[in-house]
Amino acid sequence: MSYKNFPMVPRVIFGRGSFNQLNEVLAPKRLGINAPFIFLIDDVFKNNSWLKSRIELSYDDKIIFVSSKEEPKTSQVDALVEDIILMSKERPSGIIGIGGGTLLDLAKAVSIMLTNNGEAKDYQGWDLVKNPALYHVGIPTISGTGAEVSRTTVLTGPEKKLGINSDYTPFDQVILDSELTKDVPKAQWFYTGMDCYIHCIESLTGTYLNAFSESYGNMALDLCKQIFLEDNLSDLESQEKLMMASWHGGMSIAYSQVGVAHAMSYGLSYLLGTKHGIGNCIVFDHLEEFYPEGVKLFKRMKEKHNITLPQGICSDLSDREFDIMINISLGLEPLWENALGKNWKKIMTPQKLKDLYKKM
Amino acid sequence: MSYKNFPMVPRVIFGRGSFNQLNEVLAPKRLGINAPFIFLIDDVFKNNSWLKSRIELSYDDKIIFVSSKEEPKTSQVDALVEDIILMSKERPSGIIGIGGGTLLDLAKAVSIMLTNNGEAKDYQGWDLVKNPALYHVGIPTISGTGAEVSRTTVLTGPEKKLGINSDYTPFDQVILDSELTKDVPKAQWFYTGMDCYIHCIESLTGTYLNAFSESYGNMALDLCKQIFLEDNLSDLESQEKLMMASWHGGMSIAYSQVGVAHAMSYGLSYLLGTKHGIGNCIVFDHLEEFYPEGVKLFKRMKEKHNITLPQGICSDLSDREFDIMINISLGLEPLWENALGKNWKKIMTPQKLKDLYKKM
Repeated sequence: MSYKNFPMVPRVIFGRGSFNQLNEVLAPKRLGINAPFIFLIDDVFKNNSWLKSRIELSYDDKIIFVSSKEEPKTSQVDALVEDIILMSKERPSGIIGIGGGTLLDLAKAVSIMLTNNGEAKDYQGWDLVKNPALYHVGIPTISGTGAEVSRTTVLTGPEKKLGINSDYTPFDQVILDSELTKDVPKAQWFYTGMDCYIHCIESLTGTYLNAFSESYGNMALDLCKQIFLEDNLSDLESQEKLMMASWHGGMSIAYSQVGVAHAMSYGLSYLLGTKHGIGNCIVFDHLEEFYPEGVKLFKRMKEKHNITLPQGICSDLSDREFDIMINISLGLEPLWENALGKNWKKIMTPQKLKDLYKKM
Repeated sequence: MSYKNFPMVPRVIFGRGSFNQLNEVLAPKRLGINAPFIFLIDDVFKNNSWLKSRIELSYDDKIIFVSSKEEPKTSQVDALVEDIILMSKERPSGIIGIGGGTLLDLAKAVSIMLTNNGEAKDYQGWDLVKNPALYHVGIPTISGTGAEVSRTTVLTGPEKKLGINSDYTPFDQVILDSELTKDVPKAQWFYTGMDCYIHCIESLTGTYLNAFSESYGNMALDLCKQIFLEDNLSDLESQEKLMMASWHGGMSIAYSQVGVAHAMSYGLSYLLGTKHGIGNCIVFDHLEEFYPEGVKLFKRMKEKHNITLPQGICSDLSDREFDIMINISLGLEPLWENALGKNWKKIMTPQKLKDLYKKM
């Protein structure tokens, strides 16, 4: 048995207001006046002067606002890389991603593709990246996905929705400033937070579980319960705790895996473009059979926060469309093996999976 | 307010038996046939062929066995550095520390002093190290100190017991293999585990507490309770959980601090050479006033495991000796401020501290 040599984020700043330290963090990383920093920022901040005024642009530094309405795509990464090459006199000094999982994953992928040939789709898989990525910084503005700490960047490509999993994927620097999450709309807050909650359930009930993943998973799960089921946290406490939950939830998967909800949600995203957070929720809501306790608690959280999930999103799909979803989902073998054990194919047949999707 | 840009261990392998991967981890880090790897190993393993047979020595690689009977000293670091320079044709490829907190701290300090001029004592303090350390790997064989994850290496120097706290101190690679901890003698297991427990109590009750440190501290504390108070863990589970508790306990202090027990225990170590783990226990046993709940639980753990602590170790000390201890201890201002707040000097007077020491 061989264990992963897991690459951790080597630098982290935690604290309310720590986003103010971004400029001083970047300064010593500047490679030259022609090597700009490129800021990829969720376009919800486009008119947010509070955030923009805190970023000092020097020389040829650029902000690129990116919509997170859709899941990140390999073609989008390739287009961003081309734009950045065209706008920069030299290879950039670094890429700074500011936003949720979509922006963080784009920043990770762009920083990889600026130093590796070919197209982003060529690197979807495990350990296909040859050269170290450009220096890249992740600054979450919403919490739950764990993208700030993971060694993957999940992209929808022409043939699959799959991460670029590599030792070069993790950020070189993360800044965890809960103040950036204060204006997240409630539904978004819930869906993204549930991504973390679902990570924990999938990791803690999986066959890959070990003491490393268990300790991180328990910690994140406990924080999620405090945040989504109890009433005694201040807004600030709740925001800071969710930021830590996301971080620990991401770490929990380092030596473990996600499970049924993620495997099915990837299928939804690939076919229907369903965003990852809400997709996980739609799926998880129907997984009592696999995660009885976890789903029960999820339904309580949903009720407590008056969240109504879309229904019937699969009701008009053709058999061919179901097959596409099923193929994408069943292709994620480690997720199924973690969830259901080595003989998972006997449990999760294509027909069984189709029946599950039909409920959604 | 400015927050620390905390350097994390960038690579970690977790898993029972993962020590077997050491050779393959080191191979790509070899700088040349004249640049050896130097293994600093606790001399309790001197006749342990099980461990030694797993280390492949090539070219000029050397094992140096080091006693951990005493706390690590700056003079010991300087002597090791001199030995290593004399025995190596070129600057070594890396330093591998295998042992408890003493060996891990020595390995960190030696790797720093091989690339920085002067003596180890010159670097005791905060952020005094100029050059990046040599590649260094930490492999704990006992759990609790958090030395595998911290940015300090605590050394007793001619004038003070104080860490070399720097961004270059953390290991480049850690291997967490609980199998290495299986033969730790019971008393040692308890004292070192209590170092972790005490970290948690000091961090969680301190004025520096925040959501980052709280989540790590709670996780480590919960693990300590499972290990030291309950009876339902297998040996393997208990060993793996203590390894994670130590890791998380160390992380909890990243954005927080230790407190009264550590401040007083440093005084004992400096004057009497008391080892850190047992020193913490001797002190903590008398700190009901500051940590009522924590000390109550500690006494239950002590009783459950039939641990008898030395008594009266300060009974024959002269006033001059008390003054030395008190000076060392009160010099650790951040620890006192964390424990007792900004006005700590009004609470912890030299006389009050002397009265506390006299109980021990």
